Amino acid sequence: MSAPKILIQFDTDKSCSTFDAVVAVDSGVQHLLQYSNVNSENVVGLVHGAMFTRGPDQLKNTAIFVGGSNVADGEKLVAKIRETFFGPVRVSVMLDSNGANTTAAAAVLSAAKHVDLATCRAVVLGGTGPVGQRVARLILRQGGYVNLVSRNLERATATCWAINSQVEGGSERLQAIVSDSPSRLAACMQDANVVFACGAAGVTLLDEETLAASEQLLVAIDLNAVPPAGIAGIGVMDKAVQRGSRLDYGAIGVGGLKMKIHRAAIAAMFEKNDRVFDAEEILAVGLELLK
Amino acid sequence: MSAPKILIQFDTDKSCSTFDAVVAVDSGVQHLLQYSNVNSENVVGLVHGAMFTRGPDQLKNTAIFVGGSNVADGEKLVAKIRETFFGPVRVSVMLDSNGANTTAAAAVLSAAKHVDLATCRAVVLGGTGPVGQRVARLILRQGGYVNLVSRNLERATATCWAINSQVEGGSERLQAIVSDSPSRLAACMQDANVVFACGAAGVTLLDEETLAASEQLLVAIDLNAVPPAGIAGIGVMDKAVQRGSRLDYGAIGVGGLKMKIHRAAIAAMFEKNDRVFDAEEILAVGLELLK
Amino acid sequence: MSAPKILIQFDTDKSCSTFDAVVAVDSGVQHLLQYSNVNSENVVGLVHGAMFTRGPDQLKNTAIFVGGSNVADGEKLVAKIRETFFGPVRVSVMLDSNGANTTAAAAVLSAAKHVDLATCRAVVLGGTGPVGQRVARLILRQGGYVNLVSRNLERATATCWAINSQVEGGSERLQAIVSDSPSRLAACMQDANVVFACGAAGVTLLDEETLAASEQLLVAIDLNAVPPAGIAGIGVMDKAVQRGSRLDYGAIGVGGLKMKIHRAAIAAMFEKNDRVFDAEEILAVGLELLK
Repeated sequence: MSAPKILIQFDTDKSCSTFDAVVAVDSGVQHLLQYSNVNSENVVGLVHGAMFTRGPDQLKNTAIFVGGSNVADGEKLVAKIRETFFGPVRVSVMLDSNGANTTAAAAVLSAAKHVDLATCRAVVLGGTGPVGQRVARLILRQGGYVNLVSRNLERATATCWAINSQVEGGSERLQAIVSDSPSRLAACMQDANVVFACGAAGVTLLDEETLAASEQLLVAIDLNAVPPAGIAGIGVMDKAVQRGSRLDYGAIGVGGLKMKIHRAAIAAMFEKNDRVFDAEEILAVGLELLK
Repeated sequence: MSAPKILIQFDTDKSCSTFDAVVAVDSGVQHLLQYSNVNSENVVGLVHGAMFTRGPDQLKNTAIFVGGSNVADGEKLVAKIRETFFGPVRVSVMLDSNGANTTAAAAVLSAAKHVDLATCRAVVLGGTGPVGQRVARLILRQGGYVNLVSRNLERATATCWAINSQVEGGSERLQAIVSDSPSRLAACMQDANVVFACGAAGVTLLDEETLAASEQLLVAIDLNAVPPAGIAGIGVMDKAVQRGSRLDYGAIGVGGLKMKIHRAAIAAMFEKNDRVFDAEEILAVGLELLK
Repeated sequence: MSAPKILIQFDTDKSCSTFDAVVAVDSGVQHLLQYSNVNSENVVGLVHGAMFTRGPDQLKNTAIFVGGSNVADGEKLVAKIRETFFGPVRVSVMLDSNGANTTAAAAVLSAAKHVDLATCRAVVLGGTGPVGQRVARLILRQGGYVNLVSRNLERATATCWAINSQVEGGSERLQAIVSDSPSRLAACMQDANVVFACGAAGVTLLDEETLAASEQLLVAIDLNAVPPAGIAGIGVMDKAVQRGSRLDYGAIGVGGLKMKIHRAAIAAMFEKNDRVFDAEEILAVGLELLK
């Protein structure tokens, strides 16, 4: 008989996300254990409890979800958790702080319905943030080309270095772009067939004129849910809305797929006891869903 | 297929009430998510997680319970929660801080078994506290008359103003009474056919002599569970105990009905996604139970 | 119909043990309510919520588990919880802070497979710690003899006094031994047929030479899971490993039985509403398992 599915929610914030909790329940989790204020200092004993309570055949029915508003904190926490495991005594782990991984996967998959990721030419606006970084990384890993745009050259360059260290052969297909002049951004948009806006709320990263002049563009995805739009003219509810030769997606338009990926990734954790779900694995879950 | 019933327990205290938690489980809740130290500053994100995780057809399977020892804090929290919802994107909410709503409803319903609420003449002792205020409001809303008694004139008057602002036509049927002289209280008891003691523990609000002289009295309900009794001579276990022409109820005598109302109100939250259960709605749930 | 089984986990630490939580789920608990930072100051209201929410026939479906890293804190908490109950209005309670009770029971039961507890002659190394004290007490209660060994005479004597006050006739069969000279320890081991190492991690309490010279020894149980071994030469995975005329157990070798006892004790809490599971009752659960 199968042991009940237990998900241990580690949240780096003061309160556990109710969002992540409800999605966990809707993914088939039978017992959700919520822990807030978790960090790499206090997590070790909590991980031991997950490791040493079930036999090898049942260990896959325990899993760990890492969430919270700060993605860097979540990454540190996952690193510590993985370091705590030893040998086969481990449980599956998923990182989705601030929804960054599921959002990035859903955005990339939305684009993949219309362009070939293996050859696409993407512009990632707000590319130094957690979602932007992941979108860039995912496209590079699929073989595509990325111009990573930021207002700050130093941050853009550092982000590209970090991504290149993670993706073999990435450096030849990834370029840092500073968005300080409209003409520079327009030049960079000239060749793109897909653009993602992954910036902070409240900033329009691409104006109507530049967008209209980007003639190769097939897909524009704006992940900003709060007005003003990150890409001028895209509505938050847009879901493959045709505008000229372009298909537009807004944050909520991508949201349905994001939720499906989130649920499927949690369910997939319980298939084996040794899986790690970061951006790439979550994208793979999404690719399975779209088959 | 129906999504599992999730109740999110927001408690304004440092620890979530175990009482509210057990009742939730006994009301058919499948997953209880407990959050302590919740206030109007930190609740918004938690409410968003309840709003944005399930589609319109499943949203009714998520609900929010607000509890804790301080009723005013609970009221503020419910106000903030309702303000956070928008349009149809909302979940049902129930307020029962300190058990005030279910207790008031159970007390009023116990009286309703023997007197007609629409014409009754009630005295509410300890009328400025959270339970007393609710008992007064509920009777006024049903059409009855209320003398609201307090040791403090200013507080009594302020409470009556507040209640009048909530109940149309209430001002003609609600009067503030100060209990500083025995004769004044006796005069007020003269016409009453039902009396409720809703004061703090440790204070007898009605002595035996005054009680005996209240000749019209059909029902006396003492919600004080700790000796001395709030109404002299009433036992905590009394449940429609006949004494002369009067039927007496003690706190535990009312408690069974209170529990039934509490459970039924939680279950009722999951019928629709937009219900709010404050005193009136909880009384309505109780009236259904007694049908 | 039976009410769902609710286990209320009170943990004296800042975070609830995930270990205890997973074991609870695997024991058939349907709803686990987790409370951290619980102490004898803040527990009363939480216990009331467990007492006053279900009728006499369903009260056995609510139970309380006390855990945390500090056994003394757990003992204080259990005392306060039991003091809060009154008459038949109570729920079952289990104490297993730091796993001390289930570990002690599993160690004693492992020995009981090979020696008769009623006549055995045991040496308990690290006998003043929470597990050591319990092992000594359990053996005394079964009729056996115990030499309780510590590096500190004062602590050893105080511990023996405390145990004697709990076990009738114990004083004649319990002796405090100081381990400050090898010859003294060797003399004490001379007559022993079972030895338990219950000390802190990182200290070898019995060297190879003394062990080899302990000719009557039938069973050696080392509860230390971290190298170096508490008893030289015993492996952490040992489970009745024969070495000469001796059978050896290491911490993990005892662990499987410990887990079974832990689960069975939690399940047993839900049989009645008035049970208390401290070391003796948990040992009794284990004895049932081995029948």
